[in-house]
Amino acid sequence: MAKTIPADSVGIVKPQSIHFDEPLQLRSGRVIDKYDLMVETYGTLNADKSNAILVCHALSGDHHAAGYHDPENEKEKPGWWDCAIGPGKAFDTEKFFVVSLNNLGGCAGSTGPSSINPDTGKPFGPDFPIITVRDWVKSQAHLADHLGIDKWAAVIGGSLGGMQVMRWAISYPDRLRHALVIAAAPKLSAQNIAFNEVARQSITSDPDFHDGRYYDYGTYPKRGLMLARMVGHINYLSDQAMRDKFGKDAIEGNFGRDLRTGQLNFSYEVDFQVESYLKYKGESFSSKFDANTYLLITKTLDYFDPAVDYDGDLSRAFADSQCKFLVISFSHDWRFPPERSRDIVNTLLKAKKPVSYLEIEAAQGHDAFLLPIERYIKALKAYMSVVAREIGAEADDDAAVDTAAYIGANTVMDEDYE
Amino acid sequence: MAKTIPADSVGIVKPQSIHFDEPLQLRSGRVIDKYDLMVETYGTLNADKSNAILVCHALSGDHHAAGYHDPENEKEKPGWWDCAIGPGKAFDTEKFFVVSLNNLGGCAGSTGPSSINPDTGKPFGPDFPIITVRDWVKSQAHLADHLGIDKWAAVIGGSLGGMQVMRWAISYPDRLRHALVIAAAPKLSAQNIAFNEVARQSITSDPDFHDGRYYDYGTYPKRGLMLARMVGHINYLSDQAMRDKFGKDAIEGNFGRDLRTGQLNFSYEVDFQVESYLKYKGESFSSKFDANTYLLITKTLDYFDPAVDYDGDLSRAFADSQCKFLVISFSHDWRFPPERSRDIVNTLLKAKKPVSYLEIEAAQGHDAFLLPIERYIKALKAYMSVVAREIGAEADDDAAVDTAAYIGANTVMDEDYE
Repeated sequence: MAKTIPADSVGIVKPQSIHFDEPLQLRSGRVIDKYDLMVETYGTLNADKSNAILVCHALSGDHHAAGYHDPENEKEKPGWWDCAIGPGKAFDTEKFFVVSLNNLGGCAGSTGPSSINPDTGKPFGPDFPIITVRDWVKSQAHLADHLGIDKWAAVIGGSLGGMQVMRWAISYPDRLRHALVIAAAPKLSAQNIAFNEVARQSITSDPDFHDGRYYDYGTYPKRGLMLARMVGHINYLSDQAMRDKFGKDAIEGNFGRDLRTGQLNFSYEVDFQVESYLKYKGESFSSKFDANTYLLITKTLDYFDPAVDYDGDLSRAFADSQCKFLVISFSHDWRFPPERSRDIVNTLLKAKKPVSYLEIEAAQGHDAFLLPIERYIKALKAYMSVVAREIGAEADDDAAVDTAAYIGANTVMDEDYE
Repeated sequence: MAKTIPADSVGIVKPQSIHFDEPLQLRSGRVIDKYDLMVETYGTLNADKSNAILVCHALSGDHHAAGYHDPENEKEKPGWWDCAIGPGKAFDTEKFFVVSLNNLGGCAGSTGPSSINPDTGKPFGPDFPIITVRDWVKSQAHLADHLGIDKWAAVIGGSLGGMQVMRWAISYPDRLRHALVIAAAPKLSAQNIAFNEVARQSITSDPDFHDGRYYDYGTYPKRGLMLARMVGHINYLSDQAMRDKFGKDAIEGNFGRDLRTGQLNFSYEVDFQVESYLKYKGESFSSKFDANTYLLITKTLDYFDPAVDYDGDLSRAFADSQCKFLVISFSHDWRFPPERSRDIVNTLLKAKKPVSYLEIEAAQGHDAFLLPIERYIKALKAYMSVVAREIGAEADDDAAVDTAAYIGANTVMDEDYE
């Protein structure tokens, strides 16, 4: 029996692997001769190819942003941004042609460390080159060429996805109309890098890692990846979100029971709900994500700093950008807090670029960018309805009214500009 | 050639192991029949034994709080709170008799998981019972009995040490004149527990852990403990402190050099200074601290919640307390931020207890409580000079003048009291 799919879903989607034969010159100096990108699209590309939007994924994301793969599996969860992509949704697939891909170096079908190296017949593993955000964006530009898209109506992404959006505005200033930079930062903080290093040490110190050649040993650094992901989850959730998620003060565990009624052994069973949640999240992730890809992407994050070519002045990097910017942050995000988004906004204002800024009150923390938070989704929908009007797609009147809510933010930011 | 010891040092000190033969009934229901506590003292106990102060240590601390052990070793670092303990210092050893111990369950000489279990002739390992803050304080009370001290002039501690101070005021309300609760919290937050759980998973998932019986296997979960400590260090330092410590924006690594000039291999060598710092800190710690003690103390932290016996109303726990309280927090501490200290202050005010509160501006984060930050040390000195006057020890006039600086804080807090 086929499952029931919600009316506002893009429905059953089928990813496609697109092969690229042109060599890709990487930032590191190395070259990838040929590669595959795994891609999903939702909606229909219009005749003048002006309604395409590109969705860039974050650390653990992939091409499967919306809809379902399996008509039979009733338990299947939809793509990672299904709350925002679909008919009538913020990224309205009745107006836009949405393109989503698994980035190069990923582990969901695009060429990456777990792909077979044609030179050796074995997985690349540690021989896969370091990939930077700039490299990703270059490969995404080749994908745009392949699809015949000269100019994206918008490039959109949260977290590491937002960094790709910024890089698009810098590397291909005339190939996007709008840049939506969500829950991002101009570069990582020392603390961000420190957490990434803990994640890497967790993986590389796992005896099953075998210097990244675990494929050849029939092993997998599952414990290390689990630990890395646990640390990640703490970063993605706010303290408040943890409290909300795990009940009153988040401490509803075995505490009272065991400690009061008798022997409490020196075992380290889970006592608190937050512990079992983290363990579950870590374990389920570690069984489906390639450890080398995780390592690779943490380095991609660490290395992101487009100002490095401009004597540290990021505003100069945006000098040629022709798009409009929408920057969104979340109040309780402590991975990339609102200050980091305001840094981006001030940089863009310094570069005299049009930018709107919106800070969303949300207890959830960094994860909020993935969630159906009403004001956030409404703002995205409102903004995209303006984009739709620009490219001649019919606008949603209700959404257009909401636009007023966020547009004011720009004025406020002007005052902040030094 | 003997080394030069600063004039304001307590000098060469010799720890002593004190044996206790009375069984200690633990919170868990288990009993420790006999145990040793490793203790250092600085200064001289006066005739009426009124000038004794107890210093309680935090997660990685021990009895060696001040001075030096080895007259020959010129590279030896002094005890962990040497900046605050010594002749003329905040805890002035010319006026006070300072007692510092390694807590039960520790690994610096007191009975703990690495001690030999007389029943088996092997280390206790995972058979060592869970110890709570209440158990520690009970053992510290036995130590006070042993030393003939009926009433401490002050009980003092930072972080987990501050939790012991609160427990003293609850368990032995007439046995201390002053409680100095520094950089502490009424109990852990969900996020605190989550970080502890990552630390525990790091250790217990290390194949060298052997369910805590690594002593018997001739192994040691060094990698796991290193990871645990790395996570800890990120918690102890503020993002600002990391930036300050590791240069401009904390990203002075191989980035420019390697990435620009040629091949960058998929190796995970350290790129940023913050990474090498964390690795160094993690490695050096893991070579000298017992993993089972680390596990034990993270659980001691998780379980700390004195309100649990009072239907969650912590103010009732303090109902019988007769001491005065000084609560200190640090502006950039994100492990136990100032809000948590204000929770303690408000609780004490609700219980109608005398409390002064001071928030110290300090970029260093949680670690600040260990550091010679001028206003902090001055405030401690000022407070302790009042304590000295109370017990008839000569007061330091200069310090007494500074007292005014922090005393005002109490008034501010009265307004916050709901």
